[in-house]
Amino acid sequence: MVRPDPAACAALLAFGTATIHEAQGLRGAVHGALKPIDPAMRVAGPAFTVQAKPGDNLVLHYALTKIAAGQVLVVDAEGFTEAGPWGDIMSGAAMLRGVAGLVIDGSVRDSQAIVDMGFPVFSRGLSIKGTLKHQPGRVNVPIVLGGVTVRPDDIVVGDRDGLVVVRAEEVAEVMQACRVREDKEAQTRQKLREGATTVDLIGLGPLLAQYGMT
Amino acid sequence: MVRPDPAACAALLAFGTATIHEAQGLRGAVHGALKPIDPAMRVAGPAFTVQAKPGDNLVLHYALTKIAAGQVLVVDAEGFTEAGPWGDIMSGAAMLRGVAGLVIDGSVRDSQAIVDMGFPVFSRGLSIKGTLKHQPGRVNVPIVLGGVTVRPDDIVVGDRDGLVVVRAEEVAEVMQACRVREDKEAQTRQKLREGATTVDLIGLGPLLAQYGMT
Amino acid sequence: MVRPDPAACAALLAFGTATIHEAQGLRGAVHGALKPIDPAMRVAGPAFTVQAKPGDNLVLHYALTKIAAGQVLVVDAEGFTEAGPWGDIMSGAAMLRGVAGLVIDGSVRDSQAIVDMGFPVFSRGLSIKGTLKHQPGRVNVPIVLGGVTVRPDDIVVGDRDGLVVVRAEEVAEVMQACRVREDKEAQTRQKLREGATTVDLIGLGPLLAQYGMT
Amino acid sequence: MVRPDPAACAALLAFGTATIHEAQGLRGAVHGALKPIDPAMRVAGPAFTVQAKPGDNLVLHYALTKIAAGQVLVVDAEGFTEAGPWGDIMSGAAMLRGVAGLVIDGSVRDSQAIVDMGFPVFSRGLSIKGTLKHQPGRVNVPIVLGGVTVRPDDIVVGDRDGLVVVRAEEVAEVMQACRVREDKEAQTRQKLREGATTVDLIGLGPLLAQYGMT
Amino acid sequence: MVRPDPAACAALLAFGTATIHEAQGLRGAVHGALKPIDPAMRVAGPAFTVQAKPGDNLVLHYALTKIAAGQVLVVDAEGFTEAGPWGDIMSGAAMLRGVAGLVIDGSVRDSQAIVDMGFPVFSRGLSIKGTLKHQPGRVNVPIVLGGVTVRPDDIVVGDRDGLVVVRAEEVAEVMQACRVREDKEAQTRQKLREGATTVDLIGLGPLLAQYGMT
Amino acid sequence: MVRPDPAACAALLAFGTATIHEAQGLRGAVHGALKPIDPAMRVAGPAFTVQAKPGDNLVLHYALTKIAAGQVLVVDAEGFTEAGPWGDIMSGAAMLRGVAGLVIDGSVRDSQAIVDMGFPVFSRGLSIKGTLKHQPGRVNVPIVLGGVTVRPDDIVVGDRDGLVVVRAEEVAEVMQACRVREDKEAQTRQKLREGATTVDLIGLGPLLAQYGMT
Repeated sequence: MVRPDPAACAALLAFGTATIHEAQGLRGAVHGALKPIDPAMRVAGPAFTVQAKPGDNLVLHYALTKIAAGQVLVVDAEGFTEAGPWGDIMSGAAMLRGVAGLVIDGSVRDSQAIVDMGFPVFSRGLSIKGTLKHQPGRVNVPIVLGGVTVRPDDIVVGDRDGLVVVRAEEVAEVMQACRVREDKEAQTRQKLREGATTVDLIGLGPLLAQYGMT
Repeated sequence: MVRPDPAACAALLAFGTATIHEAQGLRGAVHGALKPIDPAMRVAGPAFTVQAKPGDNLVLHYALTKIAAGQVLVVDAEGFTEAGPWGDIMSGAAMLRGVAGLVIDGSVRDSQAIVDMGFPVFSRGLSIKGTLKHQPGRVNVPIVLGGVTVRPDDIVVGDRDGLVVVRAEEVAEVMQACRVREDKEAQTRQKLREGATTVDLIGLGPLLAQYGMT
Repeated sequence: MVRPDPAACAALLAFGTATIHEAQGLRGAVHGALKPIDPAMRVAGPAFTVQAKPGDNLVLHYALTKIAAGQVLVVDAEGFTEAGPWGDIMSGAAMLRGVAGLVIDGSVRDSQAIVDMGFPVFSRGLSIKGTLKHQPGRVNVPIVLGGVTVRPDDIVVGDRDGLVVVRAEEVAEVMQACRVREDKEAQTRQKLREGATTVDLIGLGPLLAQYGMT
Repeated sequence: MVRPDPAACAALLAFGTATIHEAQGLRGAVHGALKPIDPAMRVAGPAFTVQAKPGDNLVLHYALTKIAAGQVLVVDAEGFTEAGPWGDIMSGAAMLRGVAGLVIDGSVRDSQAIVDMGFPVFSRGLSIKGTLKHQPGRVNVPIVLGGVTVRPDDIVVGDRDGLVVVRAEEVAEVMQACRVREDKEAQTRQKLREGATTVDLIGLGPLLAQYGMT
Repeated sequence: MVRPDPAACAALLAFGTATIHEAQGLRGAVHGALKPIDPAMRVAGPAFTVQAKPGDNLVLHYALTKIAAGQVLVVDAEGFTEAGPWGDIMSGAAMLRGVAGLVIDGSVRDSQAIVDMGFPVFSRGLSIKGTLKHQPGRVNVPIVLGGVTVRPDDIVVGDRDGLVVVRAEEVAEVMQACRVREDKEAQTRQKLREGATTVDLIGLGPLLAQYGMT
Repeated sequence: MVRPDPAACAALLAFGTATIHEAQGLRGAVHGALKPIDPAMRVAGPAFTVQAKPGDNLVLHYALTKIAAGQVLVVDAEGFTEAGPWGDIMSGAAMLRGVAGLVIDGSVRDSQAIVDMGFPVFSRGLSIKGTLKHQPGRVNVPIVLGGVTVRPDDIVVGDRDGLVVVRAEEVAEVMQACRVREDKEAQTRQKLREGATTVDLIGLGPLLAQYGMT
């Protein structure tokens, strides 16, 4: 497997999640309930995956000793929103290691402090309820996050719209497809300014005519 | 039917959705799950209605060729939040036509770009999932949006609180009722500053006394 | 019962809701669905409790004649989000009395005006639907708010993360526990900067070893 | 307006809600969250409409003095599920008047007793919480029920699948369309038994071929 | 505290949850999302309370060694529905001890086997996901169950409609209030059969007249 | 890949979904929102997978021409519950082909007829809303169903509790693990009858003692 370089991650982030999703064939969109805790937050990087249980963060502390700089901590906490297994102390520890951000199918606490620190966090909710530290978990295994399979080192990209997963081995081709799509969109915008309609540009006229929508 | 002038729309927007709802007799409030994608967004204008299917935006492209400047595109996408049939390209096309904004019982994508463009959008959610373009739909028919009937040219007003629908033929009287209500609220505020209570001002004392709440 | 002084409330607010929850033994966290209508809002003060019915705000008008400066109006409106029994007029009336804020298991209207006025409001949603004024209610009785019992004069603290309730008779000891916890967190942050891991600092190594997580 | 006769209601009920919805052009389906409190319950009849507030059943008692035999009591209680404004006493009173059933966008209580009495009830939920009797309401006005407009005397049909509304003036033509559809379905079933596929019978082959689905 | 005798529990069960809720002054109704896993299930008995974490059932095994015959195991599992910490083995163990039933704010598994065994279970959902056994919990402490405080030995009553909690020290007076209410309801039913309306019997005429509802 | 024989499917069904989930290491449980439309329904068989769009059933008609006897039609309809792309005609067509059942992350219509026909259906809801037939889809590709990856020929097992997925290549070992688990459960039941507790049988005493739970 080829570990993606930071430039690729930055480029993917610049394309945006919606473009990536479309460019890779309408695949990889995480359920819309997972969103940034502040709308300005953005993240992109290879996933360090964690399978956790709701109400326990032992495995998150463990993960923090294994994750590498540039990686995104991607946690399946089973969608439970009434516990916050992650807060400002752990965000600080993660930043010290160079972690790119956190994505968790669960909630987090200390949101204002995390926003002030500038650590990108995507979650299903906020909860001040701290957790216990008794249960084991798994790291670096394939997980399902909001309906999408995430394997270790798959690229996770997040912005205001939500999250998309790019398979590690498809990064180059997805980037190329994004570029093609973006060029086409630039042309579309230009032609719209010149007076065209999207019906013309996409060529929807015949189908609309067939439905009597003229 | 009388097409409302822009001044009327601006005036309604200044009153605010909650005042309009109350002034027209507690009618026309769209379900609270539809909200602006940025809290500062506001919209008011006559509705160009669309009945769409979840997961397909053919009819939206069609609608963009028919809608007039100043109108609000009002779309029933059946409440499905895991698809974004509307994005930045379409927002740009709409702005070029002078469309006042989009209200959709469904989701949109490219939210950051749309916020940056300043195009007002009210939706049930955000989703990066693009859609297909195969299914027909209907335009300029009465639809039900978040529990409220919207007919073509009814006025849709939206702000941070949510959305309200004013029937096209009632605009003048609703504006008058809003003015009366606002004058009364100004007096209420003044009297509150002078030491009155809302119990006094509304005359709730006798009813409270009847319940033993004194 | 000892009425807590404003300094104690300010101190609790500075600790933050998540710290308070943890410091008092993982108790008192209100359900995460109740949140500030603007993420920057914060509140702390003794509760003036109200048991209301959805769709009626008579008892809220009554409560406004009884509540004292510095208190927080804490309302169980049975979790109904499609009515806004509280708006800008009542916010203004409350500010004139020196009320510290509103917490309601229900919705509010006029959110932009309330944000502009700077009156802290925590609710389950927003709704422009005004209410009737016919039904009695109860004030200054114990209520259950988002799964937590709130008695009159219990301290309610809210910030971006959500809400926590501190029992009136436990304020001093909870503040002390918060201070202890905060000192420990400061040390933790320092040691993390010096290279320690949270696994080391919390002493999770033996348990992780027992699970084969090394 | 022509009041539909009992035979028409019985015939509509026999067609079933899904067939009626399809036969009248994919219109009139009430949101799927409203369902029978027992899967075997079925109802059909002209609507006696009620606009109620959550947490108050004064208007339901009033409606029981006005509704006629054969009508269905159709209540918009604003979707609030944590109150049961209707129970066994009112079911008994309704049966004595010959009421055909209750449809409520809200909850009911005494469900076992109601099932035992054989009174058809469709609701959004069950709740033992009784209600107050202080607020006015409206009867015999158009309401929106689960996203569908219901006018007085429109026919409401319900079965295990849910509810559909047939406009009073369209009953005859909808019945005719149902008959046509049912005849066609009988032929379809026969041809399926003879070995045909639905792709053949609907003529989907060309479209599938166009998509490369062969 | 007086431990209620089995006869009192049986009598409460016969009154039904809705009657009890009304008789004790509209108090004690558990949120309607907790319901029997089979509509025919019913339960009544003093609560043996448990505070559990989602995804762990160690404390439930512990509770089974402490609970007495006739008691109802009442568990706050924090509303997490995607784990089933209770199944057929534990149901069998509970029946051997004479446990009256289980009420859990969470899910259970092996529902068909439990129904076949005849052990009453009220839950928020069903989930086949087994749990771990690592986390401590608390037993015989006051908990909040679906918005209602339950203390050890409070009586929990459940039927098709849902659940209600009767305070241990109020059992006698609540039973008396239920009897009064039931006698009144019997008279009401008789008078309805004789032609009266509920408006007459409750005396709602004057209030309706005041609202112009005549 | 080895196609599992009917006997294996029947055996898995007899073990039940909860036992299978536990036996294969707490993996493969589909989200609990997908359930049988009648609690008595049960299904087991290799998956014929379909990726569909909400509001369109063209691909389902196509799938019916490709699926083999004994297979289970497993459809990701993106969780949209307000459309019923499957009804009694298609159920009849499927039964004629020997299809073992339908699992759909979406809704179905004609539920009473389907129950009467005895065709097992697991869905997220019921909806009378018929769908269009315009959009392409994919068959026999890996899908994610309620959070679990399902590949063609993986075994899907469903009963009253919900659904579990067994990987095609692991059927033999999972069956063996189920047998081991069931033998152990039989012993557990016997020892419980002889007076043991689950704390003894699982050996939880030391951990409970460590927590002071004795």
